[in-house]
Amino acid sequence: MKHNGENRTWIRRISPDLKPPSLSDNTADVDRLIKGIKKALGGDEDVCIEFSIAEKTSSALRRWGYQVTAFVFHEHGCWHLIDISDAKDREGTYGLALDLGSSTLVLRLIDLEGGDIMSETSFHNPQIEVGPDILTRIHYAAQDGGLSRLQGMLIEGLNQEINTLSHQHRIRPESIVGLSVAGNTTMTHLFLGLNPYWLCREPYIPVMNRIGRIRSHELGLTINPQAPVLVAPNVGSYFGGDLIAGILASGMNRQDEVSFLVDVGTNAEVVIGNREWLMACAGAAGPALEGGVADMGMMAGPGVIDRVVIDPVTREFEIRSIGDNAADAPGGKGPVGICGSGLIDLVAQLFLAGMIDLRGKLVKATCGDRLVEVDGIRQFIVVPPENSGTGSALTLTTIANTVNIPLKEIGRFYVAGTFGSYIDPRSAIIIGMIPDLPIETYIPLGNTSLEGASMALLTAEAKQSLFEIRDQITYLELNVNQEFMNLFSAAKFIPHTDRSLFPSVTVRE
Amino acid sequence: MKHNGENRTWIRRISPDLKPPSLSDNTADVDRLIKGIKKALGGDEDVCIEFSIAEKTSSALRRWGYQVTAFVFHEHGCWHLIDISDAKDREGTYGLALDLGSSTLVLRLIDLEGGDIMSETSFHNPQIEVGPDILTRIHYAAQDGGLSRLQGMLIEGLNQEINTLSHQHRIRPESIVGLSVAGNTTMTHLFLGLNPYWLCREPYIPVMNRIGRIRSHELGLTINPQAPVLVAPNVGSYFGGDLIAGILASGMNRQDEVSFLVDVGTNAEVVIGNREWLMACAGAAGPALEGGVADMGMMAGPGVIDRVVIDPVTREFEIRSIGDNAADAPGGKGPVGICGSGLIDLVAQLFLAGMIDLRGKLVKATCGDRLVEVDGIRQFIVVPPENSGTGSALTLTTIANTVNIPLKEIGRFYVAGTFGSYIDPRSAIIIGMIPDLPIETYIPLGNTSLEGASMALLTAEAKQSLFEIRDQITYLELNVNQEFMNLFSAAKFIPHTDRSLFPSVTVRE
Repeated sequence: MKHNGENRTWIRRISPDLKPPSLSDNTADVDRLIKGIKKALGGDEDVCIEFSIAEKTSSALRRWGYQVTAFVFHEHGCWHLIDISDAKDREGTYGLALDLGSSTLVLRLIDLEGGDIMSETSFHNPQIEVGPDILTRIHYAAQDGGLSRLQGMLIEGLNQEINTLSHQHRIRPESIVGLSVAGNTTMTHLFLGLNPYWLCREPYIPVMNRIGRIRSHELGLTINPQAPVLVAPNVGSYFGGDLIAGILASGMNRQDEVSFLVDVGTNAEVVIGNREWLMACAGAAGPALEGGVADMGMMAGPGVIDRVVIDPVTREFEIRSIGDNAADAPGGKGPVGICGSGLIDLVAQLFLAGMIDLRGKLVKATCGDRLVEVDGIRQFIVVPPENSGTGSALTLTTIANTVNIPLKEIGRFYVAGTFGSYIDPRSAIIIGMIPDLPIETYIPLGNTSLEGASMALLTAEAKQSLFEIRDQITYLELNVNQEFMNLFSAAKFIPHTDRSLFPSVTVRE
Repeated sequence: MKHNGENRTWIRRISPDLKPPSLSDNTADVDRLIKGIKKALGGDEDVCIEFSIAEKTSSALRRWGYQVTAFVFHEHGCWHLIDISDAKDREGTYGLALDLGSSTLVLRLIDLEGGDIMSETSFHNPQIEVGPDILTRIHYAAQDGGLSRLQGMLIEGLNQEINTLSHQHRIRPESIVGLSVAGNTTMTHLFLGLNPYWLCREPYIPVMNRIGRIRSHELGLTINPQAPVLVAPNVGSYFGGDLIAGILASGMNRQDEVSFLVDVGTNAEVVIGNREWLMACAGAAGPALEGGVADMGMMAGPGVIDRVVIDPVTREFEIRSIGDNAADAPGGKGPVGICGSGLIDLVAQLFLAGMIDLRGKLVKATCGDRLVEVDGIRQFIVVPPENSGTGSALTLTTIANTVNIPLKEIGRFYVAGTFGSYIDPRSAIIIGMIPDLPIETYIPLGNTSLEGASMALLTAEAKQSLFEIRDQITYLELNVNQEFMNLFSAAKFIPHTDRSLFPSVTVRE
């Protein structure tokens, strides 16, 4: 990995030209440094020095006679001081990229000035001691002091590796001035000491998806205490920064042609899209996790639609919800939502009734009154307000172009994850694991989480892309059982566009 | 004091309209709150929640069923969360303004929603225990642990008063969500735990003039831990935020007519100007401080010009520097700077030689080669590079319009400081303390430091003005002896424009 664009780095070492103070120039120490850094950066952007390091910075300036090197990072339109060092020291500028896996952590030491990978090391996640799977750890975190013990294990393990790396490469830990992390949502929570309790409980809400400004000392990391920690943002409880970093690494968000990205890790994660749109779905499909989730009653609950039948002639809806509390059932309050299998049913039935077309677009002529436009977005009313348990209509927004994308239009099929580098696409096709596409379509990418984190560490553009991808993506969260995941995967890979394959299907138009 | 402009407050209480999360809206807790606050504020500006309070915020949201009141403050184009509370609690929004005097602290409790002063209390600065004067405290701060003891005294004393105020008014200390402080530069340093060592040593450099983002917990204050602490910026070691706040309170920076502002506190501080320009000079004129400074040899040192004679016919310069190390003296290296009395001499001699005019402007015809223009600014070469001890020319920049402003053009003469409210202008004129202007010209302002701090706490405009005044002001730092201060004050108040008063003076033109 080599990155050009020295000017586009967001963590930089610079040499401000500072004159020592005099009677004719009585600018205060910190203000003087701010002025010098601003001039050296040559831009109009503000330079900020946190109050908490003002005193230390002033005494360091005096110690080194105002001849210093400054390390800064860019955030929210402002350059922030990380540290200064004696200008005579000619040490480099280093950063770390971390793939925060549930089982394995992979840490890269990167020279931020050239983009060279100096070292890469992988080691077991020390939290395995508590439990190999995420769910056991979430339970453990709920115990008294459990969360901070879990976080402590991770930080301590990381600090040991950082210490080893620094010794090997003869660099001071203070010279490591940035850290970029990508992990799934639960691991991100455990790394940051955020309570993961609600991640595995309906309606599956993280504490935080876009993580704000963090300095490494806040996490107890033994790199430069003011080093920024960049955490790849999550989309939801089961769609984490690791996959966002993966999309960044694949480059599919910058291409015109539509690609698939499948991460064959513990979760079944699929992304499809191009520069214009991205759709993803993820679910707790790992067997260990799945078992646990099912035991906990995480399946869609009472009042949730799980079955839909549409009369292809009258286009009347027959909706079944769990506990059957339809509005017209005795004591029923009407459905309150739809679960994954219900959604699959709905889309299939809409297609059979000619209410969505081959591309997944809602058809005005056949949808009739059920099709409304709210704020310019077409919505399909599945359950009108008067029959709904929530008092509001339950609606479906078109997910055109994504549900039935013709396979022949798929330019690339990226397989992320270390596992993906080892499997033979030919075998995978034979066992039905991946669709029957030309072999050259398959591109194994290796550890895309680590690669994405590295890219985001190195350039401002890549860092920004992480957040753009996160905001751009349409996400279907599928906290359902394994059977549904299988159904869903199957549905995606069946070439529905070839109607000759479905002679028994009659579509009304 | 009553301030209008609800919309211009920079610390606000708002009621975001948050829906609890559901399967159809799985936005993370913190992201949900950010979205809600942004919508409630109705602007396009970002909302930031510090990582350090993310976990606490998430659990509070759940505890109160997402029905919360949020307290936010504005800084650098972004709204920052201070805290949230249960929407059912109907407590108010309070702030504190603090005049951080060397002898006396004055603390105001203000209702931020109406601008009403709820209480005002003044008490001795607990640091008096260490020493009544600033200089003793600066020495004490240099001892092992001295600085943090001094800071601790102040914070502890403040916390006691805050506790008393909260009890009296039956408000929780957490409801105090902002603090605005104005003090002289040394007191500001001692309050913030910044090393004051260099404030009283040549060339008198503060650690920091514009103080960055601080939250109250960083100082150990027992108000809301995330409450922003606004510190009025300093201009130099002897020109602090108290006077900047005073200028704000006087309003002279918003008027067309030229005003004088004199702060009759421990330091002799004078500001003159209007909306277009502001000039200030300050010096360590307090007798206690002065004695100490003189003892420490803070007078201008070897090589510093203290006397200037200009031949009114030949316009040749005779310059005397301390230690007489003129370039042509045996072993002399040439002067390295100019002290206050030297400057007075220089300006007077330039005037007598017709080289500056009545308004203090340098005259091209008479200045000849000594007048140069650098970057569009006229500079007068006092000592050319070849005769200078620094290797560079010693120059004087014109301070036109400010040195000899005609008294009749002065619209108002503000007298700041509690002392100013007690003295009778008539008596002051008689003893020569203030110039002989019509009595109605004198406006006693009382505690302008406290008033300015209160204004900056209440509105975004006033807060911004503090920093604009600070950047706008032309500042002459006069770290010289009492004699000079007297001379300087005298020079300013003598109506030089009335030449008939000076029949013995011949000006060459």
